[in-house]
Amino acid sequence: MNFDHSPIAKDLIARMQKFMQEEVLPAEATYYQQLKGGSDWAQWQQPAIMEELKAKAKAAGLWNLFLPEDGARLANVDYAPLAEITGRSMMSPEVFNCNAPDTGNMEVLVKYGSEEQKQRWLKPLMNGEIRSAFCMTEPDVASSDATNMQATAIVEGDEVVINGRKWWSSGIGHPNCKVLIFMGLSDATADKHRQHSMVLVPLDTPGVKIERMLPVFHTLDEPFGHGEVSFTNVRLPLSAIIGGDDGISGIGRGFEIAQGRLGPGRIHHCMRAIGAAEYALELMCQRSLSRVAFGKPLAKLGGNADIIANARMAIEQARLLTLKAAWMMDTVGVKGAMSEISQIKVIAPNIATQIIDAAMQMHGGAGLSDDFPLAALYAYARVLRLADGPDEVHRGLIAKIELKNQAARANAALATH
Amino acid sequence: MNFDHSPIAKDLIARMQKFMQEEVLPAEATYYQQLKGGSDWAQWQQPAIMEELKAKAKAAGLWNLFLPEDGARLANVDYAPLAEITGRSMMSPEVFNCNAPDTGNMEVLVKYGSEEQKQRWLKPLMNGEIRSAFCMTEPDVASSDATNMQATAIVEGDEVVINGRKWWSSGIGHPNCKVLIFMGLSDATADKHRQHSMVLVPLDTPGVKIERMLPVFHTLDEPFGHGEVSFTNVRLPLSAIIGGDDGISGIGRGFEIAQGRLGPGRIHHCMRAIGAAEYALELMCQRSLSRVAFGKPLAKLGGNADIIANARMAIEQARLLTLKAAWMMDTVGVKGAMSEISQIKVIAPNIATQIIDAAMQMHGGAGLSDDFPLAALYAYARVLRLADGPDEVHRGLIAKIELKNQAARANAALATH
Amino acid sequence: MNFDHSPIAKDLIARMQKFMQEEVLPAEATYYQQLKGGSDWAQWQQPAIMEELKAKAKAAGLWNLFLPEDGARLANVDYAPLAEITGRSMMSPEVFNCNAPDTGNMEVLVKYGSEEQKQRWLKPLMNGEIRSAFCMTEPDVASSDATNMQATAIVEGDEVVINGRKWWSSGIGHPNCKVLIFMGLSDATADKHRQHSMVLVPLDTPGVKIERMLPVFHTLDEPFGHGEVSFTNVRLPLSAIIGGDDGISGIGRGFEIAQGRLGPGRIHHCMRAIGAAEYALELMCQRSLSRVAFGKPLAKLGGNADIIANARMAIEQARLLTLKAAWMMDTVGVKGAMSEISQIKVIAPNIATQIIDAAMQMHGGAGLSDDFPLAALYAYARVLRLADGPDEVHRGLIAKIELKNQAARANAALATH
Amino acid sequence: MNFDHSPIAKDLIARMQKFMQEEVLPAEATYYQQLKGGSDWAQWQQPAIMEELKAKAKAAGLWNLFLPEDGARLANVDYAPLAEITGRSMMSPEVFNCNAPDTGNMEVLVKYGSEEQKQRWLKPLMNGEIRSAFCMTEPDVASSDATNMQATAIVEGDEVVINGRKWWSSGIGHPNCKVLIFMGLSDATADKHRQHSMVLVPLDTPGVKIERMLPVFHTLDEPFGHGEVSFTNVRLPLSAIIGGDDGISGIGRGFEIAQGRLGPGRIHHCMRAIGAAEYALELMCQRSLSRVAFGKPLAKLGGNADIIANARMAIEQARLLTLKAAWMMDTVGVKGAMSEISQIKVIAPNIATQIIDAAMQMHGGAGLSDDFPLAALYAYARVLRLADGPDEVHRGLIAKIELKNQAARANAALATH
Repeated sequence: MNFDHSPIAKDLIARMQKFMQEEVLPAEATYYQQLKGGSDWAQWQQPAIMEELKAKAKAAGLWNLFLPEDGARLANVDYAPLAEITGRSMMSPEVFNCNAPDTGNMEVLVKYGSEEQKQRWLKPLMNGEIRSAFCMTEPDVASSDATNMQATAIVEGDEVVINGRKWWSSGIGHPNCKVLIFMGLSDATADKHRQHSMVLVPLDTPGVKIERMLPVFHTLDEPFGHGEVSFTNVRLPLSAIIGGDDGISGIGRGFEIAQGRLGPGRIHHCMRAIGAAEYALELMCQRSLSRVAFGKPLAKLGGNADIIANARMAIEQARLLTLKAAWMMDTVGVKGAMSEISQIKVIAPNIATQIIDAAMQMHGGAGLSDDFPLAALYAYARVLRLADGPDEVHRGLIAKIELKNQAARANAALATH
Repeated sequence: MNFDHSPIAKDLIARMQKFMQEEVLPAEATYYQQLKGGSDWAQWQQPAIMEELKAKAKAAGLWNLFLPEDGARLANVDYAPLAEITGRSMMSPEVFNCNAPDTGNMEVLVKYGSEEQKQRWLKPLMNGEIRSAFCMTEPDVASSDATNMQATAIVEGDEVVINGRKWWSSGIGHPNCKVLIFMGLSDATADKHRQHSMVLVPLDTPGVKIERMLPVFHTLDEPFGHGEVSFTNVRLPLSAIIGGDDGISGIGRGFEIAQGRLGPGRIHHCMRAIGAAEYALELMCQRSLSRVAFGKPLAKLGGNADIIANARMAIEQARLLTLKAAWMMDTVGVKGAMSEISQIKVIAPNIATQIIDAAMQMHGGAGLSDDFPLAALYAYARVLRLADGPDEVHRGLIAKIELKNQAARANAALATH
Repeated sequence: MNFDHSPIAKDLIARMQKFMQEEVLPAEATYYQQLKGGSDWAQWQQPAIMEELKAKAKAAGLWNLFLPEDGARLANVDYAPLAEITGRSMMSPEVFNCNAPDTGNMEVLVKYGSEEQKQRWLKPLMNGEIRSAFCMTEPDVASSDATNMQATAIVEGDEVVINGRKWWSSGIGHPNCKVLIFMGLSDATADKHRQHSMVLVPLDTPGVKIERMLPVFHTLDEPFGHGEVSFTNVRLPLSAIIGGDDGISGIGRGFEIAQGRLGPGRIHHCMRAIGAAEYALELMCQRSLSRVAFGKPLAKLGGNADIIANARMAIEQARLLTLKAAWMMDTVGVKGAMSEISQIKVIAPNIATQIIDAAMQMHGGAGLSDDFPLAALYAYARVLRLADGPDEVHRGLIAKIELKNQAARANAALATH
Repeated sequence: MNFDHSPIAKDLIARMQKFMQEEVLPAEATYYQQLKGGSDWAQWQQPAIMEELKAKAKAAGLWNLFLPEDGARLANVDYAPLAEITGRSMMSPEVFNCNAPDTGNMEVLVKYGSEEQKQRWLKPLMNGEIRSAFCMTEPDVASSDATNMQATAIVEGDEVVINGRKWWSSGIGHPNCKVLIFMGLSDATADKHRQHSMVLVPLDTPGVKIERMLPVFHTLDEPFGHGEVSFTNVRLPLSAIIGGDDGISGIGRGFEIAQGRLGPGRIHHCMRAIGAAEYALELMCQRSLSRVAFGKPLAKLGGNADIIANARMAIEQARLLTLKAAWMMDTVGVKGAMSEISQIKVIAPNIATQIIDAAMQMHGGAGLSDDFPLAALYAYARVLRLADGPDEVHRGLIAKIELKNQAARANAALATH
């Protein structure tokens, strides 16, 4: 057992921390000044400084680390600490072309895309020239049960026809967003996990309409946005279907593709949440050392030291389990790491929200305002308790696997006696 | 022991619920449409429908219930359930002229105001013609320790001169806000609780400048707002000082006045938080009954029933303790109820945030958006964990009183043996 | 709303506290010295001092307060604070003839007993001459679902024949225990809640065998004990059946009788648990004031003040809700108070275990030993999380009632629009 | 980063699990039958089967694994999983000669013992011929602050004279216990951490008196026991002092030696607690699958699946952090791992008590009795929240280190700008 990072990870961690410190964090203020947000999302603009930062990151070899073009993919356990570093700045994943849902979409295209799809969409995504969205969750059903999905992707002749309504399509408001992956019902009579398909939909296809952007704790998350999108008789050639070079053979592969898509993405999200928690702890400590009440720094008052200790313990544990889940994905695959992935998906966003909330409290009213990044970090972590499966679904899955393992163990014990 | 509300409370509860149901809640959509918010607070406007609602509430005898003009004040324990009713709509307290900080400011003026002050400020406040703010918290110090206060109110000849910076001055952005109560240091050499004074400051006094509005979880809470205000050589006649008909004798009475001001206000805030929690539980139950996943309504899945049961238990307990604290204020006074008031100040906002958060979770992404009132209720309850004294200070006070009582008890036991 | 105790309650509280202080607590050491416990329960003896204390309590008019012989029953809300007082000494309820399961058994006999049953069993129980047990829980099934019960009480001619195995029959080891109430299945074909019956079984009836005493956290709770009892063809006349003067008509009334039996008993248990928690808080405060570490009394170290404050808040809330549940039983009956009774049944034992555990921690190793009563109080409170329905069942019931109420509310709202 | 155990650890894990399954667990019933416990500790006997098991473990090469005689010490990270295996049987550590406080005492002697001390005490301890105790905690002071220690070890001429009272001297009741390590104050005028010394005291030295055995949750933990011991003018030659071949130079090294002693012991304790938690989870799952209520196995009812999932997550995290702490001890030493060691010392016993408590609840009353090992496991884990430093002290230390690190980080950041 060795808790040291590999040399390649160590090297990248050092370079990435340096880049964050020297390039990204100092650019944050400019980024938010240049950002044109507001309720009219058609007016949103990409801050110029983001494109400059992207160019620098590319030049520094800190580009597409989640999935290098040349195939020399970092192990998940090596990439994970890099994702953590980006967790302290909500704008930073885009700098490194490592932000959701693009990363997941690129992984899907690498693994399941046809040559044509790769040329048309994967290449510009890898270059950071365009951005993408992923349309799965629906407003009218409990999406925690993915089989509830009602929007349709029906093959009619040499076309696939899309209808329905999706929401929480993150990133769809970005000025550079050009394509979305739509998941819908193709055949309600097929086996439960063979009914759905994924389709690549250019944003400008007739029938695609962004109805509105959804706020999260009152913020629209500009320039990314979380869109509600209607699809009305959207017609695309069969080649838009993901999962078969001929298009048609991708029909019914939606769940299979979704399953593979989610593993690494959850590691990334969880590590970013841990990075956010670590940042919140740092701010909390600094505040508790610098503010004085009743004659002492806050750090010495009442239970504040306990709050700090509890935060440290929670972070250490969550990080180790996330790294172990990543390592298991690398060594035994997503299927073998299923319980661990669900575990971190519950733990990381929960400890992050708790720690960020505690940091807010230590900051007084300032902690809830925009003078500190805590409200923004909180929104990110809170959303994660729902996105990619709510806590409840993951806990259910963990218990199911546990009970299955324990039953097998009991049976094995019986068999040997 | 009798847990029944008094006849007068029962009558008002029934009338108020009816008014909320028939007048206020149906008007909410219009209110938010008419509301002109946004980042330029000088443009904020009072929605016309609010003035209509105020007139109706006045006509219905549901006006100033926290403090009737004729002196026939409701007992705190009778007013408390009315405050709870207003907790489910953030806009509703103003309808009944019962919103903070006006209520506290009016109480101060009733109790400590000179005749002139009453004529000039109390009367229009009671009539709902103007609104007011309260400036106590400061950006540069830990305001959890009120003695940290640095802004000054110094007597110079026949004037009091105000300097310093305040923030979280709630309601100061309201178009109708015309006056604020400023609390500042008058004499640093006096006894610790005799150093500060309260001064009535018309908003248009030269030297008063609203620097910005502070967001709370990204919302500016229009048209009320939470302002950061600078005071630069603001000069007022001594008659602006609260606490003595001659003005000057109010110098040094700031803490004394603040103490009396906070008791009833904490009951109001806590009951509104409980009302918000009750509303969140209602929404949670409705959602859990109507959404289906894995073949069952959410209410029947996993630990969801436990979440509902825990919420019900938390609300019942918090409400009873808040009512008891109100009853103690009525029977033994604020001083005798000090521990209980601090207790509810910790409990009510905490259980409210937890229950609202659980309701969000039950709603999925929708719960974080503006499609439901949960994000707004959450912000209200979360702020309350800091406003009027953070949890930490109240817990400290509760423990101090407890230890004092227990030590007295131990001594008494010793004395009898 | 009035949080004051009634004059009759106030008088009894004062007298009972005095009696506890002057008679019971000073006698505790003697009681435990005289007590002959150990693993051979046939050797257990009633300490002589207990009979002396009982005589004194009777003389002082502090006897059978839960149910006065003359019918002038105290309201539940008036008796509740008396039960709390007895919570600080595990031996004290017997002093006042107010201990479980005798109280519940007496209530059953008052309400459902035949004249003969009252003469033979109720009278000596009321006089404190004998003690009784209650046999419901079974070792082989999940007793949280009472309908799982497998032991049988079958009518054969003019006899009722009892078979099966029960456990957690508390008090059955007491040297004075002479009778038990057995609950068993009479007719598996009847309606679900009409299948079981209750039968009075003298302990010396052939076929009744105490198999062993069950330890709770390693203690046997002498001289009461928690027995496992087997019943083998135990034959009794029909007049032993509870619920009808003719015996036979009591068949199938087991659940109905059990339901009524449990309400007041839960109030008693919860108030005793609150009394235990209050005592633990008192000990915790005293310890935290008297022990010094790192140059300060423990009360001033780290989060200890928060622990004390949290305990105070939990107790205040739990007590108020328990009193309200008692008041509801008095005013709207057990059925109308069903949710509240389940709520306190969850809350009181949980906060008691938490507070007692915190008190242990404040005492260091001593807190786990017998130098302090904490380990004994903990065992009592911990058992209560299971006895009379585990937390889980009560939470389920609270949620069920809540969802039913909310659904009705939603329907009513629909109906008026 | 590699989460796989080393080949040597894997081999030992497999052999140890086999030995536990085939030898130790089947022998438990016999062990407890042969054990003669009870309140008269002078009568306690070592069960014969324990000596048989010890011989077998020695033969199987599973002896003294924590510290092999030949110096080929296992790394802490390799030994840790072996300690976990022994956590499911309270009697098993002795089988492998790996139980506290002998392990710590042996470590002390290996590192600080004189040749004579090694011959006389270390050798028979390593052979499992004798057992030992450790006397540090005192009844009259808050031992969470070790500098409170009042018992004395004063050099008088060529003797060291010991006086004072100790308690929680675990293992002192064991029939094989022949020696204890006493820690006491030698020079109150020396530097704070140079005032105390450690002395080896044969149990039969005149003046050493075991006053009583302390129960933990009503159990005496036979045949080990937790003793209260008085020392009255106990005189020993200087060669009994630990820490210098000449005896005298060990004076004042008590804290230094204690510090080194505690690191590995905490890993062992925490891993055993994790093993206990893992066992409790196993029992909980089995019970939840086999018991049926309301028509379903408990595992499918209410929040039970969540309880299982939460337990799994807590165990995984605690185990990883404990292993990391062990690895840090191996790689950067006890001093560098100080925060991590304190972290696991808080976490492991806390999650263990919570999980064991949850398992009890799932078992109903049976869970509190001796029909399952849960009450015994609970007592072990609960004691650990106090032994070797209470949670509160460790949390304080974690926070202190964190704040120091964060302050250094902030200063470094300032320095580079």
